[in-house]
This record gives sequence, structure tokens and C-alpha cells, in this order.
Amino acid sequence: MRARDLGVVIGDHPTGAHNAITDVPGVRVGHVTLDDEGPPAVHTGVTVVIPHDNIWTEPVFAGAHRLNGSGEMTGLEWIRESGELTTAIGLTNTHSVGVVRDELVAAQVRARGDGVYWSLPVVGETYDGLLNDINGFHVRPEHARAALESASALPPAEGNVGGGTGMICHGFKGGIGTSSRVTDTATGRYTVGVLVQANHGRRERLRINGVHVGEMIGPTTVPLPDLPPGYEPGSGSIIVIVATDAPLLPHQCTRLAQRAALAVGRLGGTGEQYSGDLMLAFSTGNRGIPAYAWDEDAGTARPEIGVRMLAPQLMTRLFDLTIEATEEAIVNAMVAATTMTGRHGFTAHAIDHDLLRTALSPEETP
Amino acid sequence: MRARDLGVVIGDHPTGAHNAITDVPGVRVGHVTLDDEGPPAVHTGVTVVIPHDNIWTEPVFAGAHRLNGSGEMTGLEWIRESGELTTAIGLTNTHSVGVVRDELVAAQVRARGDGVYWSLPVVGETYDGLLNDINGFHVRPEHARAALESASALPPAEGNVGGGTGMICHGFKGGIGTSSRVTDTATGRYTVGVLVQANHGRRERLRINGVHVGEMIGPTTVPLPDLPPGYEPGSGSIIVIVATDAPLLPHQCTRLAQRAALAVGRLGGTGEQYSGDLMLAFSTGNRGIPAYAWDEDAGTARPEIGVRMLAPQLMTRLFDLTIEATEEAIVNAMVAATTMTGRHGFTAHAIDHDLLRTALSPEETP
Amino acid sequence: MRARDLGVVIGDHPTGAHNAITDVPGVRVGHVTLDDEGPPAVHTGVTVVIPHDNIWTEPVFAGAHRLNGSGEMTGLEWIRESGELTTAIGLTNTHSVGVVRDELVAAQVRARGDGVYWSLPVVGETYDGLLNDINGFHVRPEHARAALESASALPPAEGNVGGGTGMICHGFKGGIGTSSRVTDTATGRYTVGVLVQANHGRRERLRINGVHVGEMIGPTTVPLPDLPPGYEPGSGSIIVIVATDAPLLPHQCTRLAQRAALAVGRLGGTGEQYSGDLMLAFSTGNRGIPAYAWDEDAGTARPEIGVRMLAPQLMTRLFDLTIEATEEAIVNAMVAATTMTGRHGFTAHAIDHDLLRTALSPEETP
Amino acid sequence: MRARDLGVVIGDHPTGAHNAITDVPGVRVGHVTLDDEGPPAVHTGVTVVIPHDNIWTEPVFAGAHRLNGSGEMTGLEWIRESGELTTAIGLTNTHSVGVVRDELVAAQVRARGDGVYWSLPVVGETYDGLLNDINGFHVRPEHARAALESASALPPAEGNVGGGTGMICHGFKGGIGTSSRVTDTATGRYTVGVLVQANHGRRERLRINGVHVGEMIGPTTVPLPDLPPGYEPGSGSIIVIVATDAPLLPHQCTRLAQRAALAVGRLGGTGEQYSGDLMLAFSTGNRGIPAYAWDEDAGTARPEIGVRMLAPQLMTRLFDLTIEATEEAIVNAMVAATTMTGRHGFTAHAIDHDLLRTALSPEETP
Repeated sequence: MRARDLGVVIGDHPTGAHNAITDVPGVRVGHVTLDDEGPPAVHTGVTVVIPHDNIWTEPVFAGAHRLNGSGEMTGLEWIRESGELTTAIGLTNTHSVGVVRDELVAAQVRARGDGVYWSLPVVGETYDGLLNDINGFHVRPEHARAALESASALPPAEGNVGGGTGMICHGFKGGIGTSSRVTDTATGRYTVGVLVQANHGRRERLRINGVHVGEMIGPTTVPLPDLPPGYEPGSGSIIVIVATDAPLLPHQCTRLAQRAALAVGRLGGTGEQYSGDLMLAFSTGNRGIPAYAWDEDAGTARPEIGVRMLAPQLMTRLFDLTIEATEEAIVNAMVAATTMTGRHGFTAHAIDHDLLRTALSPEETP
Repeated sequence: MRARDLGVVIGDHPTGAHNAITDVPGVRVGHVTLDDEGPPAVHTGVTVVIPHDNIWTEPVFAGAHRLNGSGEMTGLEWIRESGELTTAIGLTNTHSVGVVRDELVAAQVRARGDGVYWSLPVVGETYDGLLNDINGFHVRPEHARAALESASALPPAEGNVGGGTGMICHGFKGGIGTSSRVTDTATGRYTVGVLVQANHGRRERLRINGVHVGEMIGPTTVPLPDLPPGYEPGSGSIIVIVATDAPLLPHQCTRLAQRAALAVGRLGGTGEQYSGDLMLAFSTGNRGIPAYAWDEDAGTARPEIGVRMLAPQLMTRLFDLTIEATEEAIVNAMVAATTMTGRHGFTAHAIDHDLLRTALSPEETP
Repeated sequence: MRARDLGVVIGDHPTGAHNAITDVPGVRVGHVTLDDEGPPAVHTGVTVVIPHDNIWTEPVFAGAHRLNGSGEMTGLEWIRESGELTTAIGLTNTHSVGVVRDELVAAQVRARGDGVYWSLPVVGETYDGLLNDINGFHVRPEHARAALESASALPPAEGNVGGGTGMICHGFKGGIGTSSRVTDTATGRYTVGVLVQANHGRRERLRINGVHVGEMIGPTTVPLPDLPPGYEPGSGSIIVIVATDAPLLPHQCTRLAQRAALAVGRLGGTGEQYSGDLMLAFSTGNRGIPAYAWDEDAGTARPEIGVRMLAPQLMTRLFDLTIEATEEAIVNAMVAATTMTGRHGFTAHAIDHDLLRTALSPEETP
Repeated sequence: MRARDLGVVIGDHPTGAHNAITDVPGVRVGHVTLDDEGPPAVHTGVTVVIPHDNIWTEPVFAGAHRLNGSGEMTGLEWIRESGELTTAIGLTNTHSVGVVRDELVAAQVRARGDGVYWSLPVVGETYDGLLNDINGFHVRPEHARAALESASALPPAEGNVGGGTGMICHGFKGGIGTSSRVTDTATGRYTVGVLVQANHGRRERLRINGVHVGEMIGPTTVPLPDLPPGYEPGSGSIIVIVATDAPLLPHQCTRLAQRAALAVGRLGGTGEQYSGDLMLAFSTGNRGIPAYAWDEDAGTARPEIGVRMLAPQLMTRLFDLTIEATEEAIVNAMVAATTMTGRHGFTAHAIDHDLLRTALSPEETP
């Protein structure tokens, strides 16, 4: 079940073939989900996004944005400096960033063999400690490895899967969501695909297509998640990965990443004090960039590399696509998620599909 | 006429006494408006925001954010480095930033006398060249001076006034708008006040309180402004000034400024390619900071300065206030503005109050 | 007289034909110098750097860096957002940034005619108020215009000229300096040219090629400039403009700009509290970028623009060239400058060429 | 053996009691060194810097700077957002960042018990793959734990220890180095302490106190490290940790971090393309900041927190201390390091103390 199945259509632009980040050619996604009622309750996992098959030896341009920094995304210093994403992207829970990060290094070693190069992988996180035994460190290297190995160009599963398994979004059960948009130009079609790990927001601020859904589906109809005393509503985080085949330069990727933050705000997120709202955008539209560690040709036989820049005049359109796809990916995460009872018996309730449909289209209610 | 007079109430928090940036104690605003049908058509002006009476000798903490950089705000390097705002703030049209900037320097010379110090004033701008003869450079030093001298703690005029005179917002006539919010805490009340010079956005994306107002009040009911061939819709800019008496440190001001960008996004702005969407936040909650040029005491007799930091746990609440006040300030700018015909006979139509009321509350339409 | 005439050779790489920023093809520099003993003493001016003849309609990629922000450089928000420098660059004194900025706008109006576009010029400054009647605002629009009109591809004058007329550097008379470096690659020769307006630093920290020149040529041999009571040594500022014909992307320009800051540090600058040390780098190696305001072709017929990126593996070499040329440009500014007595009878003494030669090569002293 | 034992004194300011980062009261350092000739050759380890004993529950203000981003330092998004360092700092090799990061999380769990909070530790790295079997992932959680548990307020060991075990600096054997400086003011003494993990730079560019040491101690007297074919000289990285008890606000910490980059440049570093030169500065001068996860008092009973800001007029002096201490820490790293033969028989030779003494003071050579 996805947002569109409930009649939720965000924006004016058409989606890609599957309304998923994998509509961007070459992009693959893999999930590994750990789900054990326990005790201890284990509801967590790993999601990986692979920009293209040779990412370990051929970077893509990328850029990042921080809406609020109560979170982690490794690898950003290198992206900001070089404009290049040089690894697959991992998503997991807050306390398992390290194990996933080092396993992405190991994957590069497996792919390239031993040698004199270094790996600076990108791993983002959101906090699932309300539902998952996060301090039990249940994510192991083999889980990250399995996520990489299972990565597929098929539309990824949404909701309680992979890194998003134990997440809570706007007071409803959250998790992984994805969406895409396309636009046609004189040189062909561009696709923007988005994947989110959504664990942010307060219920009363949630709006979908401008409708105050969060207030309409209040705690009396769908109970709020149990929060420990003193826990601040709105704590959480969201990671947004934006992929496009439009040929962007690094600074253009950064601009796209910032627009994803506007989508978070449009649905009701505010970059709350304890929310780690981090956005990463990459473009597969420029290929042939030399490997970040040395390339025998680059710098000697090949001092200049031809690349393409999207006409600045088209950026506004790409911003629109990015905002629409990010909004819909967040809604998809909530729509696909299912109610979960986890750690200490805490329960996060899924958004009720009928209530949501009614909230959005009151006149169509039977 | 303001948004609340039409029944538009944004958010949950109460406003300050006058729902204006001047609700923050000490803040004053001055406008000088140039309005001459012409030819040439002169529809421009200067607005100044003065943080407190002694700003030339006693800085306040401040921070800035860029949603999109197709614009100018002078003085930002010093704010980013020192965390301090050391001058009044000027707002004008794009091609008159310099004259206002140098006149703010002259004002400091008048206030402090000749001497060995320097001035790095803050002047922001938005482009009024569709309605105003911008290349005629009609803003003169005396206009900036008059704006300073007329600055008052009374609620500022809105709409076609001051720097906002010739502006267009979401395809309606725009200009200056203001709003405020307050919150009570164990140590007392904090006020957040916002002033915008709104000249950004596309009509079809405008939403107020989630209602697709821009689509509902379409070109058939209120004509779109005449745009020259090739002019890209959404070009424009918005400057947002956020003032608060909550005791913020510089990095906390920066965070507030970023939240103002979310408000732009919530109403439908996207940081379009040719929009200069720049936000500045300052706090008057810490006073007694030594002058940025040397202070005989500071650094010798007074190596440490006691200041207060708002508890991080309260930042989310301040974010909410900032977003609400910024949204309402933008709507106030549109509601107060009146239809203007300017340069080359171009016309920007004000948003129709009855149509707006109907769009927002269809059931209440008689 | 230049540094090399005194035997000062910085680094290992060869210079361009004239060891000047104008060695980068297309770059032109113009100075207008105001020099009047007074009273009031007027020792100031305007310098312009023009990246290429059509800069008003065809941007170049650029990036900026702040070592310390007690200074102004307008236009940076647009450069950071778009990666593009869209105007000539002006340099003047701190309190005349506005007049030069607006005159650069007027120059664009003269070049393009009236129309619907906007100008966001770059103007940097350093403070000459110790020698110049800065609060007399003696720089007028016609001076900026004359600097533009006189701009030439010949090697620019150095020392007490243009925007650098009244400057003080490391306790000696400072001003404008320039230098260049070249390197050969498989695709041809790249040139890096630098121009500085040097008004920063403390004498005792000055080192040239590692020699503690500032301590060796102390106040007893060359008196320190008269400083008003309480004036903090090291207050001042330096603007560094880096030009190159190597085909850099915007983020690569930003990296070059940061390396210029290392050169300031190598000579003894520390980004002092009241120093505005701002660096701007641009590349003329990518041409054909569409104008920042709309371009009839761009975005419709021409959605993608082919550009070239310097191989990342060559950046280290470009960093070396940039550091060397910046160091030598600063030394050139001091060597070319001549003793000036200005405002209130303050005197800034030029570095003594014989003393400098002796300090640098003690064994060669006759 | 330290730099001062060889007569190398950098700058004018006095050192703290032990010329070490631990001169800053409360700061502790721990090393765990893995040294096994192999095969495989294991020459790596973990170093931790603990700002004060309660860092897990009471943050300190902090700020970061990137000279070049070919490296990793986790936790920076949170530091940039909140201005707070909330964990101990780990330093290790590039491919072991994850394991150390997760173990720092585990240490927080051990310290605070299970509960609803999250940990965003800071872990930096440099690449030791020339001497160490980096792809063997020999650093294990117990090593990070042991480094934490052994952390002491005594002056830390330097050279081939902890995270610096297998490092190479300016073509000589590198590693860990430390230094400190003090200054007295009207409110008392401030200490700035620095610790580096130095693995950067090219030999021919090395200068100590302006002397071209790298050229004087050339490959003929001390062989260069064996580099694999195609390996780019200058690849490497340096991490600089700056600690001070001066009461800095977050933006002031950021400024200190940036000055540490100038020290790298003064000794000959250029932020080379494949060097991860990252600086972190923290201040223990403000205590009592509420824990980053919720604090029962903060935000309700304690909406405002009193802190102190160093007078801006004293920042230049703190910059001087930071630059001096960073330079000397780098030299200390080289002086203390000993020749190491590692992976594939590669050898990195220590700088020869007699040659260094002679280079620096030729006239004193017997």
C-alpha cells in the first residue's frame, strides 16, 4: 500500500516508472531487516543505496545539506571537499553507524583487492531506541554485507524494513519510503528519485497536501507512541537520499539536497532540536570521473575531464521535482509502515489508511 | 488590513501586543517610500530595522541563512565570523544596496564622530525592476537617512512601503510584512518578531494554512503580473529579518534564521534559481557585548563577558514561533499590498481580500 | 622595484610572462588613485579586476574563502549558490564599498542597456582610515568608472595605487601586489595569477621565505606606523584575488581560495580579530556558461552545458602555484609601496630595500 | 626526546607546565598501540582525548575546521549545529573509524546505563596503510576501550603511539605530538593545548621556524619512505585537537580550529588533494551546559544558562597560542617518532636529531 493507493498525489509532475529511487538508472537498494520480538526487542536493520555498479572505483558528483544536525552522516567532509561520492550509502540506527561504515570499507577491499587506497564511506542514521534494543548493538557486519549483496534495481520495499525498521514519523509508525519524478527537456528525460529513512516530526504538525492530517487523526483515534517521561516530542531524525540522472555539478547537488529540507518542512517537520535531518543528493549524469585515489591516467595523460552542467535555468524545475518526491517518499514511509510493539512494550501505531483517506478527501467519504 | 482581519491565523502560539517585529523591546523600524507614476515610474524605497538604540557601539548576537543566493546581503562575513550584528539593517532594491550601505556608514560616523573604527553594515535587497525604474538609481543617501531618522517602535506599515514598495510575491503584489509570537517560560516571556520584504514565489504554488490559495485565486480572477518575454516565474527574492529577546548565542541565531526558510517553503517558495532568499536573525537578549572596534575595557580589564544561552531544549519551541511568524509576515505583506501599475505599464495585482477569505473558508461564504 | 629585483624568489614554479595576474589571458586590471596631502588627507582609490571582456553577460566559475571576516566582500552569496562570478571585481576602502558596488551595477546597465536583469557585483575592501580621511567618502562613482575604463591587460602597477593606496601591511607601507605562476601539463600550460590588496599583519610576525624579516627590520631601523591609542596591531585586512585559466569547477575554485589563506599565514598573518581576510578565486578555463539572468537558449534549447574539470590529481600542484603566487604578491605590495604620511600626520614607512636585501641574504652583504 | 630538547622553540609564548594538551585542566589522553612485525605487519592503534571526566553527561563548547576533506571526523554535524562536543574523541586509522566510534557509544552506555538517549561520538583518522595492514582491520573494540580506560592527565606519549603508530609526516616518520601555550590576563591564566596525529606533508616543503629543513635533510641523508608506484606524495592527513580553558563560545572555538590550519601551512602543509586535514577545538572554560539529550531541569526550570565569552579583543592572542602550539606539536610528533619498517617492507625513517639540530643552528655545529 502506497500513498497513491489512498489517493494521495503530491505535486504536478509525473512519477518515474515505479515511483521509486530505483527509477534513476543504475541505482540499486538493498535492505536487511532484523525483527525479533525478544526480549530484548530487536527491530532494526540496514539499508544501502548504491549509485551505480562501479561506485567503488568511479565516483559521482554529490552534495549534502543539514537541516538540523542532531545526527550522523559519515563521509561528508570528503563530499564537501571533492564534490564526489565515492562509496555506497548505508543507513542504519544511531548506535550502529560504525559497524556499517567499516563493513562498507571491507566491501571496497573485497571489490578492489588489497592495495594503497582508502575508503571514506557514507553512513547515515536515525534513532530507533524507543522500539529497538539499540544499546544491544544487534547490527553486525554480516547484516551490512547482506544488504549490499541483496541490493537490487527493483523498487525497494517501504515501511518497517532495513534501516527504517524501528522508526517513528510524526507520531505514527515510520520507516523507509521512496518516490520519484521525471521531466522532459530538449535533451531528454531527467529523473529525480528519493529515498527517506523517516523518524522525525510531531503528530500535531503533520500536513499532507496542506491538510492538517496530524490534528485530524489525533491521539484519540490513533494512540500516540508511548514516550518515556521527559522524552521530547519531535526528537528523531530523517535521512533523505536524492538521486538524479540529470548532469549536475557538485554545487548543484548541494542545492538539490537543501530543497529536500523544504519538503520536510512542508509536511510539518521543523528541524527539531534533537532531530538529525540530513540530506544527500548525487547525480549519475556525469560518468567517467577518475577514482578518488589515484588513477594512472588522471593528472598525467588526462589533466582535464569533460563533464556536463545542467543549465542553471532548469534548476527551479529540478527543485520542484525534488520537493515533490521527498514529500511523497515521507508519506509513503508512513503509509507502508505497520504498527510495531517493541522495547519495554512501547507501541508505535501505523497511520490508519481509512482515517487518512477520509481526512484527505472528506467529501468522498461514503 | 492584515491577515488576521481576514480570519487567517497561522499556528498555535499567541502574537505579541501588535503582532509585529517591534514587539521585541527596543526594535525600531523606519520606512521611506518613493512613489512616482513617472515616467520614469519610481516605486521603490528603503526600510531600516534597528535592533536597539546603541547598536553602533554595542553589538547583538546574530546569525544568517541562505535558502537561495541570487541576492545580496552585505555584512554577512562579519556576522558569520564574530557572531555579532554591529549596525542597523537596511532593505532596498537590488541596484541601490550600495548607496544605502554607505549611508549606514555615514550614520555611524554621525553617531560616533570621526575616529579609527570601521563599519560593516548589513543591507539586503530584492528586485523591483518590473515595477520600478531600477536602473534610474532613484534611491539617494537622504532616503536612507530619512528611514533611519523616522525609525519608530510603533508597528511598521506593511505592503507597498519602504524597501518593499515595488515588490511582487507569489504573483500578487507583495512588499513589507511583519508578525510576532510570544511564549512564556520559567524565566519570563520571550518574543520572536519577524519582518519580511517579500518579492518571491510563483502563484500556483502559494498555500496559506495548507489551502491551495494560489490555484484557487488563479489568473482568471486576478490577472498575473505582466512579465517580459523570457522572464522566469519565481524570480524575485525574499529577505527575512528575525528578532528575539530570548538570550541566544550566535549559533542559535543561525538556527533560527534557517527555520525562517522553512516558512518560505511552507507557503510555496522553493528557493527558486533566481531568487535571493536570505534570512538574518538577531537576539537582543544578551546586552553589554563590547563594541566590535576596540573597547578600552575589553580585552584588558574585562577579558570575559557574561552572557546567557537559551537552554537547547527550548530551541524547538523558538523554531515554531519563528516559522509561524514568518509565514504570517509573508501573508501580511500580500494582504496589505495594493495593486500597482509601474514601469512600462506593468501591473501587479493585489490579492483580492474577498477571494482570499472565500478560498480559506469556503463554508463561511455567504 | 619588485621582490625579485631584491633577490626574493618564492617557491619553485616559474612565473608567467610578467609575474602578474594579467598573465592569465583575458584578465585586465584598472586602478584609479586619489592622492591629496590635504587637509583632509586623501589617500585612497579603486582597483578593478575584470575576468574577461564579456563578464557582464558570460559568467565564470568562482569560489570564495574567509580566513577572518572582519571585512566585506559583496556578491558572495550568489557566488556560493551559483558557483559563478557574474561581474567585474572592485577593491576600495571600507567605507566606499557601496559607491563602487552601485557603479559596477551602472557599468552593467551601460553595457547591456536597460532591461529586466539584476546585478550582484563583487566589491572587497580594506581599511585605510589611518592614512586616509575615510569618513570623508572621497571615492565617487566616476572613480570606479574610470578604473573600469582604464583596465588593461598590461601588468598592473603595485604599491600605493588604486584601492591599495593608503594601506599598511605587517607594519610597513602596503598596498596592491601581484604575481603569477605557470605549470605545464599534457594538455598545455595553466597559469595562476594573484592580486592582493594588502593591509594586514603585525611586523614582528613577518617572515619572507622563512626569514624573520619583521624582527630583523625592527622599529628601531624602520619606525612602526603611528597608531592611535588603543588601536590593535594586526587590525587591517587583506583581499586576495586568484585567477586561473585551468578549467576548474566552482568547488575547485573554492579550494584554491582557501589555499591563498595559507600563504597569508606563511608570511605571518593569523587572520587577526579585526582583519578582514577574504579570498576569491575564479577560473576562465570554462567559457560559454549562460548569463545568470535568463538566456533565451539556456534551459530550453540548451539544457546541458559542457564544461571541463581539472583532474583532482592536479589540484595539489595548483595549490602550490596559488600559495607561491600569493606570498610573492604580498611581498611585491610591500616592496613597491613608498612611505606615506597621511591623516593627522600619521606615517607608514616603506620597507627599506637594502635592509630587506641584507635580512634575506646576510652573507651577500657587502 | 622533544623539539625543545633539540633547541627548537616555536614562538614567543610560554608553554604550560608539561608543554602538552593535558596542561588544560581536566583533559586526559589515552593510547593503545598495536605493534606486530607480522606478517601481516600491524602498526596502528587508538588514541583518545577526554575533555573532562563527565563529558558523557555534560557537553563542552566546540567548533571544527576543514583545511582539506580527504578524511573523516565523525560527529561534526552535531558540533556544527549545537556548538557542543558531547563525547570523548577517538583517533585511529582510516579503516577503523567505525569500530572506535561504536565503542565510544558503548562506553557511554556503560557510563550512563541503558536509557533513551543517543550518542554521536567524534572519531578522526589518518591513513597508515603504507606501514600497517590496514585492510586487516586489526583495531578491535577492546583496544578503544583500553585507550579510554587508560586515559590519564599525565603528559601523553608522542611519536609511534596510539592512533599515530604507523604515520608518516613530511616524508619522515610521524605520529602523535602535543604542545601547549599559556597567557595571563586580568582574570587569570588561559592555557591552549594541542594534540596532533600527523601523517601529512611532503618533505621538500617542510620548514621549521622558517628553516627549509626538508630540503636540507634530503633523501640522500635520510631516505624517503618507500612509496608504491603512483602513490601521490603529500597524501596522508593530519588531525589537530585544540583544547583550552579560556571560556569560548562555539563560534570562537571554530575560529581557533581554523588557526590550527595556518600552523599546518606554516610548516609546509598545503591541504594536499588526498590529505584529510581536520581540526577540532573545544573549550572547558564553560561548564554546566545541560546534557544534549534531555535534562530534567533544562528547558523548564532552567530556560537560560549563564556562560562566559572571551572578549573578542583577546582572540588574536589565542590565535597566536594556537598556531604556536600546533606547529610545535607537529614537530614533536616527528622528533619523538622512530624509524619503522612495516607492510611489504616499506620503511619510514625518523628525522635524524643531529641533522635537525645542525639544520636549525648551523653556526652551533661543532
